[in-house]
Amino acid sequence: MRAPWQFELRQMALPDSPPAGEVLVRVDVCGICGTDLSAAMKAKEWESFGHEVAGVIEQIGPSVQHLAVGRKVVLETSSFCGHCALCRNGRVDLCNKAPGFWGRPVMGFSERMLVPACCVVPYEGLSAEVASLAEPAGVSYDMVKTAAIALGDRVALIGPGPIALMAIPLLLRSGARQVVCIGHSHSGRRLEVARALGAEVVAVDGPLAERKELHRQFEHVLVTSPVDTVPSALDLLAYGGELTYIGIGTGSGMISFDANDFHFRKLQLRASFASPALYFPAVLEMLKAGIIPGERIISHQFGLPDLAAAMHLCRDDKEHVVKVVVKS
Amino acid sequence: MRAPWQFELRQMALPDSPPAGEVLVRVDVCGICGTDLSAAMKAKEWESFGHEVAGVIEQIGPSVQHLAVGRKVVLETSSFCGHCALCRNGRVDLCNKAPGFWGRPVMGFSERMLVPACCVVPYEGLSAEVASLAEPAGVSYDMVKTAAIALGDRVALIGPGPIALMAIPLLLRSGARQVVCIGHSHSGRRLEVARALGAEVVAVDGPLAERKELHRQFEHVLVTSPVDTVPSALDLLAYGGELTYIGIGTGSGMISFDANDFHFRKLQLRASFASPALYFPAVLEMLKAGIIPGERIISHQFGLPDLAAAMHLCRDDKEHVVKVVVKS
Amino acid sequence: MRAPWQFELRQMALPDSPPAGEVLVRVDVCGICGTDLSAAMKAKEWESFGHEVAGVIEQIGPSVQHLAVGRKVVLETSSFCGHCALCRNGRVDLCNKAPGFWGRPVMGFSERMLVPACCVVPYEGLSAEVASLAEPAGVSYDMVKTAAIALGDRVALIGPGPIALMAIPLLLRSGARQVVCIGHSHSGRRLEVARALGAEVVAVDGPLAERKELHRQFEHVLVTSPVDTVPSALDLLAYGGELTYIGIGTGSGMISFDANDFHFRKLQLRASFASPALYFPAVLEMLKAGIIPGERIISHQFGLPDLAAAMHLCRDDKEHVVKVVVKS
Amino acid sequence: MRAPWQFELRQMALPDSPPAGEVLVRVDVCGICGTDLSAAMKAKEWESFGHEVAGVIEQIGPSVQHLAVGRKVVLETSSFCGHCALCRNGRVDLCNKAPGFWGRPVMGFSERMLVPACCVVPYEGLSAEVASLAEPAGVSYDMVKTAAIALGDRVALIGPGPIALMAIPLLLRSGARQVVCIGHSHSGRRLEVARALGAEVVAVDGPLAERKELHRQFEHVLVTSPVDTVPSALDLLAYGGELTYIGIGTGSGMISFDANDFHFRKLQLRASFASPALYFPAVLEMLKAGIIPGERIISHQFGLPDLAAAMHLCRDDKEHVVKVVVKS
Repeated sequence: MRAPWQFELRQMALPDSPPAGEVLVRVDVCGICGTDLSAAMKAKEWESFGHEVAGVIEQIGPSVQHLAVGRKVVLETSSFCGHCALCRNGRVDLCNKAPGFWGRPVMGFSERMLVPACCVVPYEGLSAEVASLAEPAGVSYDMVKTAAIALGDRVALIGPGPIALMAIPLLLRSGARQVVCIGHSHSGRRLEVARALGAEVVAVDGPLAERKELHRQFEHVLVTSPVDTVPSALDLLAYGGELTYIGIGTGSGMISFDANDFHFRKLQLRASFASPALYFPAVLEMLKAGIIPGERIISHQFGLPDLAAAMHLCRDDKEHVVKVVVKS
Repeated sequence: MRAPWQFELRQMALPDSPPAGEVLVRVDVCGICGTDLSAAMKAKEWESFGHEVAGVIEQIGPSVQHLAVGRKVVLETSSFCGHCALCRNGRVDLCNKAPGFWGRPVMGFSERMLVPACCVVPYEGLSAEVASLAEPAGVSYDMVKTAAIALGDRVALIGPGPIALMAIPLLLRSGARQVVCIGHSHSGRRLEVARALGAEVVAVDGPLAERKELHRQFEHVLVTSPVDTVPSALDLLAYGGELTYIGIGTGSGMISFDANDFHFRKLQLRASFASPALYFPAVLEMLKAGIIPGERIISHQFGLPDLAAAMHLCRDDKEHVVKVVVKS
Repeated sequence: MRAPWQFELRQMALPDSPPAGEVLVRVDVCGICGTDLSAAMKAKEWESFGHEVAGVIEQIGPSVQHLAVGRKVVLETSSFCGHCALCRNGRVDLCNKAPGFWGRPVMGFSERMLVPACCVVPYEGLSAEVASLAEPAGVSYDMVKTAAIALGDRVALIGPGPIALMAIPLLLRSGARQVVCIGHSHSGRRLEVARALGAEVVAVDGPLAERKELHRQFEHVLVTSPVDTVPSALDLLAYGGELTYIGIGTGSGMISFDANDFHFRKLQLRASFASPALYFPAVLEMLKAGIIPGERIISHQFGLPDLAAAMHLCRDDKEHVVKVVVKS
Repeated sequence: MRAPWQFELRQMALPDSPPAGEVLVRVDVCGICGTDLSAAMKAKEWESFGHEVAGVIEQIGPSVQHLAVGRKVVLETSSFCGHCALCRNGRVDLCNKAPGFWGRPVMGFSERMLVPACCVVPYEGLSAEVASLAEPAGVSYDMVKTAAIALGDRVALIGPGPIALMAIPLLLRSGARQVVCIGHSHSGRRLEVARALGAEVVAVDGPLAERKELHRQFEHVLVTSPVDTVPSALDLLAYGGELTYIGIGTGSGMISFDANDFHFRKLQLRASFASPALYFPAVLEMLKAGIIPGERIISHQFGLPDLAAAMHLCRDDKEHVVKVVVKS
């Protein structure tokens, strides 16, 4: 891909066999993420992309012990290194030397890709389409874990994208007495899925500041829409409440709010960021058990030659798109 | 007191005997808090003030069971109600109906005051001067508890006032491997006390943005200086770090920072606010055990007639003042 | 009641008006608890009993501010005092001076009873029958909270009584990926309710030691059956697992297990004990929202004159009884 | 070594160069652990032993990326695998496939040993003697972490061995207001070190049941003496208290206690077990900072040829021995 919004499939060279510590994966399915959309509008050079991958191991490099050719696998974008002080102290979630495949010349929208062995997580008992949700579901999981819901809490969830939708059952499993999903009324199908997953749905097309009936009503607010929403979303928090967000701003990313008010209401602001990627076995179990209903999340499937069309659909059809996956 | 910076002692009427649920306390000592200074510059009408009180119960109103005349006590500014849904759910720390004495016509800089019985906490084994530190020490305690230090964390503490100084031993008891206290070089005595309490001391007179050697070095940053410091203090946090602050801004209180950077570094911002007041028995034990060395915190003592002079000293002598208490 | 298994309704004297700090409650409904059964077999003197009470306030004693005649209320058996050091430190859950009505001459199986005002929790929007479940549901809540389930954990729940059944939705809301309810096959209706509430059901009539397929499969085991079950229930725990129990032994209460094995498997044993009673507002909300489906839990209703028959049924009909409530 | 109490140094074969994923370490120092003493009394065949190792990397096998010849290192007995579902879910502390060097033909009391690369943790800035304390200090750390001390808790620590002694500063850093170290009066030097590290010391030579003044006084009890002590140590716990232990029984390991009393006092029993080994970077920092004063813990040093004498001393001189290390 390259900005503005150009896509091209190319023949790329891969080594005859994987180097030490790496494996060659045949890609079955790769999902399209919101990050892909913004990258496609900004990329200055041709770049590879795609990071929600389910595939099969085709070859294994030297010194890879715990994997076997033919295993179905999903891919962590970056993993923990296992060796740094943070890992050795048990805080693999903060590993600052996480190896991964982000930025490599061949990424997920491809037929085959090379990845570090530590990024590879075996799965079974799921279709490749649903398995490819492990990556974004892991992001949902990190967000819910960061939020630290207590039993009985009321939760507002702003921005009904796939990350938020998959967070709904996790929130309900994490103690939420009530999940209110807030989105623009044009996101018809997403709000419908939110409702089916157990959330109450509130369409908000104007400023949150005007929706007084929602103010001070929630122990937790989770924001997956652009960060510009964060300051007004603080109004929704009850005393002692906590806002968790994930994602980046549409513009500069700068946010402003009243720190005195934040103080007197004893609030918290927490960023979720799933790097290194964790929790894949946990979400794979939840996809298998139907706790996260993968089929409901995937709204469209395309073939790899139609990647450009898939990207267009994601950008343009807010009414019907939930999650689009691309099959190689 | 009244703005701008006027003080007057007056004869005020108190009832002959306390109403139901209230007690009459003879004030022994009342400490001066930073909040008092800013209030004294802003108050439009004559107002009573003083809320760091140690005294003795002189009279007890009807239906007060758990207290007795003659008991030495310290006062919570506001307590939990015990009856609301939050209290009944065990979250007394979030009680939103907290009764207190804030804003009453007679407060702590007085000879006698009426207070709700639920605000009264007995003590013994301490001087009244040191006991009067229970209120600000409870604030320190709430801040440290909100920060949730883990064993081995490095902590930066910005703004070496009494709240911060009393937080130092609590931080060292809460897991901090290192506490670096950051303050202006003109706060000579405060930095000296910080060092004596076990902190490393760094004088910073210019912008934190220029002190690159401090950036990304701390799992926790605690800010007790005006909130305007918060955005630049975020630079000090390591990946996954968390900033806790207490207090209010010198101006509007608005703060701005880059939410993208905050996201990619997986940061947290937490407000501490000690309302309702809790943890008095805990800090009284720590004052008694010398874990919080009360005598080191109190730098000056005045009599009630000299309240104005005491206030002037607090405002003007940043070099030598740590904590000033006023004896009635 | 008096052992062995004698019951009698008597005319008891109550004061003309409640003393200070107390209220007179007209009892609408009182549930029968397993504790009542064992007490009825052991009591040496005539004793009053009944502690799962929903009623209406008829009179209010002096100095009770936060309640009004005519309010529908449920009763905590014992509450926190609000004044001791533990309460003042925010640990009301550990209050060791909890006032209550246990052991008073008139308890819940009665028409009217006097209780300390602090034990009274208002409710609305529920039938008195369902509201009377607040007390045992609060016990379930304390047990689930003590267990501290993490998102994705597998939970075994041994002994399908009302406490366990009401814990099922709380466990599923607290992170449990799977709840396996284990009970004797003769508890037909209870196991049926367990299944309807979302648990998998396993009938075990012999020793747990022989059910190897259940061993090492659970991050959490919750035991509500007599404590004699605890040692063999430890076998069900995975490495690092944790067993929480509530209740007392049928005999001496002594349990024995291999502390070496417990060490090498890094296990934990935790007792739940809901004194002081907390979490009533939380469970009342959950009963209202249908998260805890009160109607499914109540299997039989009796009038107060039929209390003895109700007690017999509880003791004798394990096949059909879930929860029995008595209406005054 | 071989039971009963026989020791012999032997020439053992090592490969010319380490296999893939392994490193050859020249042993500088290896500490003697209590486990070594009991093993030496029970071993039926000749066995190698020693697991508290500090040394230097001499050779590196293929595919070991993150280590270099010449690095000073300490060794984890077993590490986490990095690949299993628990590791991928961030729970490396529960890894059930932990690779290690336990049971290999050459262990720590040797000149050179082969170990998996994942067990190797670099260090600098410490003597090899003090660095060899990282392993037992990691055990202390796991115990303190398992106990989950809250700020202000009172802690009783039973059995003043090196694990307990190194736990003292960690407990004081983790919130303990008071640490009372309880041991037999014949452990003179150990109790002296406990006192120097900030604990209060109580010599108890008879049954704990008779020391009523200690009963119900502690939020936490930590037991590092044989597990037979656990039942009577429960008496020391306050309501809601929690006992953490580490280690094994002198006999069968069976313990018995009253589960009714445990329930009514809402107690918890937690096992600490440091497998996989974690927290080495954390404790190395604490050894460097002097928070854990390594030199005070090491009471005796021997050369490898005198290993048998060192073992004798450990077993026989309870009066003077704290920690014995053996230099290769």
